[in-house]
Amino acid sequence: MRMRNKPWASPFLESMPSTVIQNPKQYASLWKQKLGCTILHVEIGSGKGDYWNTMAHMYPDHGWVAIEKDRNVAATSVKKHINTLLPTMVLINQDAKDISEWFTEGEIDVLHLNFSDPWPKRGHSKRRLSHSDFLKVYLRLLSFTGQVVMKTDNAGLFEFSCEEFSRNGFILAQMSVDFRRTDHPEDAITEYEQRFLDLNQPIYRAIWRKYL
Amino acid sequence: MRMRNKPWASPFLESMPSTVIQNPKQYASLWKQKLGCTILHVEIGSGKGDYWNTMAHMYPDHGWVAIEKDRNVAATSVKKHINTLLPTMVLINQDAKDISEWFTEGEIDVLHLNFSDPWPKRGHSKRRLSHSDFLKVYLRLLSFTGQVVMKTDNAGLFEFSCEEFSRNGFILAQMSVDFRRTDHPEDAITEYEQRFLDLNQPIYRAIWRKYL
Repeated sequence: MRMRNKPWASPFLESMPSTVIQNPKQYASLWKQKLGCTILHVEIGSGKGDYWNTMAHMYPDHGWVAIEKDRNVAATSVKKHINTLLPTMVLINQDAKDISEWFTEGEIDVLHLNFSDPWPKRGHSKRRLSHSDFLKVYLRLLSFTGQVVMKTDNAGLFEFSCEEFSRNGFILAQMSVDFRRTDHPEDAITEYEQRFLDLNQPIYRAIWRKYL
Repeated sequence: MRMRNKPWASPFLESMPSTVIQNPKQYASLWKQKLGCTILHVEIGSGKGDYWNTMAHMYPDHGWVAIEKDRNVAATSVKKHINTLLPTMVLINQDAKDISEWFTEGEIDVLHLNFSDPWPKRGHSKRRLSHSDFLKVYLRLLSFTGQVVMKTDNAGLFEFSCEEFSRNGFILAQMSVDFRRTDHPEDAITEYEQRFLDLNQPIYRAIWRKYL
């Protein structure tokens, strides 16, 4: 997600040290201790933070780390939810390509990829968050029973991801080609997702586990 | 597929011994020799035989074994295509639950499941052609580089199948949640499939390979 430059973004993010983590490396292996949880969720590409905020309130005893590389988007997401922030919610305003430095092996329980950029051009496939380069890192960071949960409206990205996960040591634990045709009170619907539902477009969703 | 009883079905099927195989066991390990091919396709649930007939003409140097358990449907399919039957096309009018007796280990190159009965009730899941009981048999009958190709209009069956194959030693080589949004001249569109396309409904398709 891109938005116009907000001059207040950097000072605002710096003014929120309990939520916005400036040096995530320092918490490698310590995230659960820091957030007071036994189950650690990480969302890559948290955008406006609706999923992060809603899920953190639905599961208040879990830890929720949002990663959003765009400074303006990250600042907007924290501002939007400033009155509902919990001690279990933190945000990293950096590029997830460095994620392997911020978490240690087996530290993450659930990795969320919500409506990620599909990077539709073949030459850009390495930028997709489900490219095998990322999957190899996820495999290492996920706990023994860890999982990756993906939701997307983009058929091409979903197809690519299903093939890529299958080839890279994951098994498909759950898959839906129209996730919202049945009720799922356990999972938050974001504003962005609601737009597709209003247009009667299917939401694709999959959960992968490590091949044990 | 069910249809009303046709008294002519049995005598007709018996009158076509070069196409309709009465005792498939006798060809176990000999199918490629019998059909004069190096690549053996098997379609389980061939219905009216449109896919069987069209694909056999598109790939005339491959062998095409259709399996249809309903006697009336099987007879109708042979009759429908009686003027275009090839020596590479045979039909088995028996229940595929016995398929492991008809083929030997590694004999099948491509297994086709087209618009199979979804058996939507949970208690009937064992009847689905992608139930793990069947997948274990397919694994054994498929060649080293063999594949299973599934097409369906049924979201529930597709989701079940993707999960079931993933859990049972297959990798997802190709997947599409809307197969006909791009041209696929390599694959026949049947009358049945065309009906869904006319209604603008997606065709789901996947190709699985053995986990090597």
